[in-house]
Amino acid sequence: MLEFKVLKQSEKSKARLGLLKTANGIVETPTLVPVATQAVVKTLTSEEAAAAGSQMLICNTFHLRLKPGEKFVKSAGGLHKFMNWPRPLMTDSGGFQVFSLGFGKDLGVGKIIKEKTGEIVRLGQQPKLLKITDEGVHFTSFLDGSRLFLGPEESMKIQQALGADIIFAFDECPPPAAEHAYIKKSLERTHRWAKVCLKAKRNKHQALFGIVQGGRYKDLRQESARFINSQPFDGFGIGGEFGEDKKSMMQMLGWVTEELDPKKPRHLLGVGYLEDIPKIIKQGIDTFDCIVPTHYARHGIAFISSGTLDLLKSVFLKDKKPLDPKCSCAVCANYSRSYISHLFRAKEITALKLLTFHNLFFFNQYVSKIREDIRNNKV
Amino acid sequence: MLEFKVLKQSEKSKARLGLLKTANGIVETPTLVPVATQAVVKTLTSEEAAAAGSQMLICNTFHLRLKPGEKFVKSAGGLHKFMNWPRPLMTDSGGFQVFSLGFGKDLGVGKIIKEKTGEIVRLGQQPKLLKITDEGVHFTSFLDGSRLFLGPEESMKIQQALGADIIFAFDECPPPAAEHAYIKKSLERTHRWAKVCLKAKRNKHQALFGIVQGGRYKDLRQESARFINSQPFDGFGIGGEFGEDKKSMMQMLGWVTEELDPKKPRHLLGVGYLEDIPKIIKQGIDTFDCIVPTHYARHGIAFISSGTLDLLKSVFLKDKKPLDPKCSCAVCANYSRSYISHLFRAKEITALKLLTFHNLFFFNQYVSKIREDIRNNKV
Repeated sequence: MLEFKVLKQSEKSKARLGLLKTANGIVETPTLVPVATQAVVKTLTSEEAAAAGSQMLICNTFHLRLKPGEKFVKSAGGLHKFMNWPRPLMTDSGGFQVFSLGFGKDLGVGKIIKEKTGEIVRLGQQPKLLKITDEGVHFTSFLDGSRLFLGPEESMKIQQALGADIIFAFDECPPPAAEHAYIKKSLERTHRWAKVCLKAKRNKHQALFGIVQGGRYKDLRQESARFINSQPFDGFGIGGEFGEDKKSMMQMLGWVTEELDPKKPRHLLGVGYLEDIPKIIKQGIDTFDCIVPTHYARHGIAFISSGTLDLLKSVFLKDKKPLDPKCSCAVCANYSRSYISHLFRAKEITALKLLTFHNLFFFNQYVSKIREDIRNNKV
Repeated sequence: MLEFKVLKQSEKSKARLGLLKTANGIVETPTLVPVATQAVVKTLTSEEAAAAGSQMLICNTFHLRLKPGEKFVKSAGGLHKFMNWPRPLMTDSGGFQVFSLGFGKDLGVGKIIKEKTGEIVRLGQQPKLLKITDEGVHFTSFLDGSRLFLGPEESMKIQQALGADIIFAFDECPPPAAEHAYIKKSLERTHRWAKVCLKAKRNKHQALFGIVQGGRYKDLRQESARFINSQPFDGFGIGGEFGEDKKSMMQMLGWVTEELDPKKPRHLLGVGYLEDIPKIIKQGIDTFDCIVPTHYARHGIAFISSGTLDLLKSVFLKDKKPLDPKCSCAVCANYSRSYISHLFRAKEITALKLLTFHNLFFFNQYVSKIREDIRNNKV
C-alpha cells in the first residue's frame, strides 16, 4: 500500500509539500532518505537514526544479497524487524551497483565524484567485474570472486524477501561518460526490465517505483519519463547521470518531472551535496537519498549553519564551542569541538558516531526548514 | 574530598558494601570502573556509558598526556566537562604504561595475557622504549618517537590538570617475571615516589590513592601494604603481578588487604576476567577497573548469563534470540544475535557499539547482583 497526498503546491516553484503513507508509517515530504546500505546507518543504531530526525531509510538490495543474504533477513521477519526500524523503508534495486562496481570500479569513481570521470568509457565497452546482457547482470563478487546473477525478476524476488515499503524496479545505471547510442540501447533494456518487474511483483503492501534513466540527453530523458509514467508504478525514481554542472542537473530534472504524473511521488536517487537539496526540491522532488551527511562525518567533516568544519585540524583542539552553536542536537548540547577533535585524532570510534549523528540531524533539520518554507510560501 | 562509608561487612567473607562519596557524586561499592583510556569508553558516548550502569570511569594519564595533552583538557574545564561525564572519575598514574609500553611491549604482552610471559626479563634489564631512573621514567613515544619524562611530580601535575575525583600515586609496575631483588629495588622507588606524590598534591577536591606493589612475593607485598597504609592516602590501589593462578592471586590479595586500614577504599588495578570478580570482592576489594567487557566486545565476544558467544560465527546469522534472553539492556530489547552477527560480518561499526553496550551493562548488572548478595548475607 502507498498513498501520496500533495498538501500544497508552491506558487513560486515546482516544490510541493506532501504526505507519503506507507504500511509502516507516514513520511512528511520533501524529505531526505538516509542511506542504510547494509541495514544500518553506518555508526548509528536505528534508534539514533530516528532520534536524528530520519523518517525513512534506504537499504541496498545488492549488498544485502551478498551479506547476510535475503533469506536470513526474511527469516528474521523482514528488514524492519531485522534492523529494528518499525518505520518506512526503501530498498534500491541493485542497478546502481551495476554501475559503481562495474564501470565505476574500473573508472575508480562512484557517482559522488562523477565529474572526474572524463570520456573514458566507449560505446559498448564492458567493465571487468560484470557483464550486462538483455536478461540482467552477471557480477563477479568483489568479496570473494564468486559469480552472481541479478536481473529484474531476481531483484524483485530479493526486494520482496527483504520487505521494504517502497522497492525500485531493476534498471541499468549507465556510466556518466556513455554516449547517446549506448544510453539509448541501455534505456530499452531498462524499460523492458521495468515491465518485467511490474509483472514479477507479488506483495501488495510494497509499493514499486519505476526508474527514469536517459543520461544527459533531453530526448532520452523525456522518452524514459514518458514510458515509466505510462506504466502502473506507484511512484518514480530518477537515476543516473545528472549533467556536468548544477544548471544542467536542474534542467534535466525539469525535463523529467514535466512528464511525470504529479499525483505520484518522485524519488531522486543519490544527491551529491547540501546545496543541491533546495534546488532539487524546487524541481518537484519529494524524496532523495544522500550519503553526504554520514560519509563526510566518517571523514571528520561537520556540516554547520555557517558551512563545514574539518575536525581533524588541530585548531579545533582548543575550541570549546559545540559543533554548531545554532544546533539543538544531543551532540551539540553535550560535546565540544575540542572533545570531538580529540576523539578523531585519537582514532576513537565514538568520534565517527557523534559526527554522524550531528550531520544527519543537521541535514534533516535543513530539509524540515524547507518544508516549513514551502508551507509559508517562501519557496 | 572523599568520604567512604562501609555500610555492611559480610560475615561470610571479607566482602563489604560501601558508599564512596566524591565531589562529583556517590558510588555504590563494590563496583566495576569501566576503562575510558582516552577520555572515552571505546565506541560509546558518555551518556551510553552511564545508561549501561557505569558509576565511575577511569582515564589514562599517560595517554591523555600524549593526546590531546592535559592543557587542552584543563582549558576545557577539566576531564568531567571535556568528556561530558558529570559523575565520579579516576585517572591512573601512568605507572602501568611504564610496564606495558616498556617491558610489556618488549615481551609482546599486556597485563591481560601476563601468564604467557615466562621468565624472560632478567634483573636490571631495561626495555628499549623507556629508561627507569630514580627520578622517574624516560619514554620514547610510540606515536612519533619523541621523548617524554614522567615522574611522580609530573604525574601529579598532569592528574591535577585533568581534575579526576580520584587520582593515583605514580608507581613502577614491574614485569611479571621480575625476580625478588628487582622487585625490592623497584618497590623502594615506588615508595619514595608515593611520598613525593603526597607532597606534590595540591587540589583538595581530589582524593589521592597510594599504590601497593610487591609482585608475587609475600614479604614485599606485606612491606608495601604496611608502608602505603602508614601514609596519609585517601585510599589504596593494588597493582602489578597477581601470581600465576587464581588461587595465588586471592592469597596475594589477602596478604595485602590484611594490612590496609578497613576504613579506606581499596581499588584493584586491572582485573582480568569475569570469574575473578566475585573472588576479589570476597577479598575486600571495593572498586576495580577492567577492560574485558569493552575489549572483548570489539572482538565479537558477548558475555551472557550462560557464558560467552562469538558473534563472528556464522551459526548466529539465523539466531533470532537477543544476545542474552535474560538481559534487560536496550540492545537485548531491540536487536537479535542474527542482526549483530550480520553487522560484525559486514564490518559495520555499529556492531562494536551494540556489543560494548551490552557487555558493559552485563558486567555492571553482575556486580550490582553481588552488592545485592552482600546485602542479603549471601556473599
